[in-house]
Amino acid sequence: MTDTRNRRGASRTEAIMRTTLELGQEIGYAKLSIEAVAARAGAGKHTIYRRWPSKGALLLDSLLSLHESDLDYPDTGDITTDLRQQIYAAIDLMARPPFGPLYQALVGEAQYDPQVAAALNERFIAPQTNKTVARLKKAQDQGQLARGFNLDLAMAILSGPLYFQFLITHEPLTHEYVDQILDSLFAGMGPGDV
Amino acid sequence: MTDTRNRRGASRTEAIMRTTLELGQEIGYAKLSIEAVAARAGAGKHTIYRRWPSKGALLLDSLLSLHESDLDYPDTGDITTDLRQQIYAAIDLMARPPFGPLYQALVGEAQYDPQVAAALNERFIAPQTNKTVARLKKAQDQGQLARGFNLDLAMAILSGPLYFQFLITHEPLTHEYVDQILDSLFAGMGPGDV
Repeated sequence: MTDTRNRRGASRTEAIMRTTLELGQEIGYAKLSIEAVAARAGAGKHTIYRRWPSKGALLLDSLLSLHESDLDYPDTGDITTDLRQQIYAAIDLMARPPFGPLYQALVGEAQYDPQVAAALNERFIAPQTNKTVARLKKAQDQGQLARGFNLDLAMAILSGPLYFQFLITHEPLTHEYVDQILDSLFAGMGPGDV
Repeated sequence: MTDTRNRRGASRTEAIMRTTLELGQEIGYAKLSIEAVAARAGAGKHTIYRRWPSKGALLLDSLLSLHESDLDYPDTGDITTDLRQQIYAAIDLMARPPFGPLYQALVGEAQYDPQVAAALNERFIAPQTNKTVARLKKAQDQGQLARGFNLDLAMAILSGPLYFQFLITHEPLTHEYVDQILDSLFAGMGPGDV
């Protein structure tokens, strides 16, 4: 009985999140409202508000719950292969609807709304950072990464150039761009032995 | 006569831009309007619209015209010194009002408004990229930078980690952070000779 109710709750939650992405893709983030999601999903407005305090929180959860596992690191034993694959997966997600444009709008909103900014960090950036640091730590222990490389900076150094393209220049994120960035970061900017 | 008129035009333009930043700092970007700037600057609304098609364009010009020279590269002959000084200047600007919060709001707006995004790239990012590449090219010619370092990526690699902090984690940008990033980028992530 409780199991049945939990399953029903879980599938209703998932239906609301799927509807959020569908509707967001159709009409854009600016026009998306919790009321419209409720109406299309056949759910009560208050059911949604009980779980998600704002449109930003609902969208963030919807983007993540349905796509988070896409961003897990493989572990082939080779760090450059694994970083490359994981970053390819991330930019493929950022490049296509509904994730790409809705995630971009969400980051835009985070510049005005501290609650959205906090949720973005807590629910998405922090877990991704933890996964990245764990994978790099293992590589460092195996001698595949510079011994002195500061793992606390890993997320900013690896994903900063992607966000720069995604949010500032708005040029397309391609696998070739990822390859070039990784090659440059691994080689370093220093002149080496001169 | 023409000179006097040009000088008057230039000082009125500057007064409008100063008013934009003052008012933007007081009431925030969301509430800023061209009408309010016109009223406080004692200028006609149409005078402003003739020069700036939108609030975003006016704010961008105001931020840049009054601060652009802060972001010129020094040339002491040592590339790490010069990068460090220029990036310190950039984050000092990003860290303090009015530039910081208004620039953040502008980048937020660029996620929704393609005209603001285009203006941001054309008026700010492209000139900054050119200055950065020119300074790095000279360093590369002098053997102070890895010979294979791809200068086309320089802006994304150097400023990506700053924007990641500024737009995503919203943690403070400090000189220490800049030092750590530069050290990591120059050393590289690769294990070196193993």
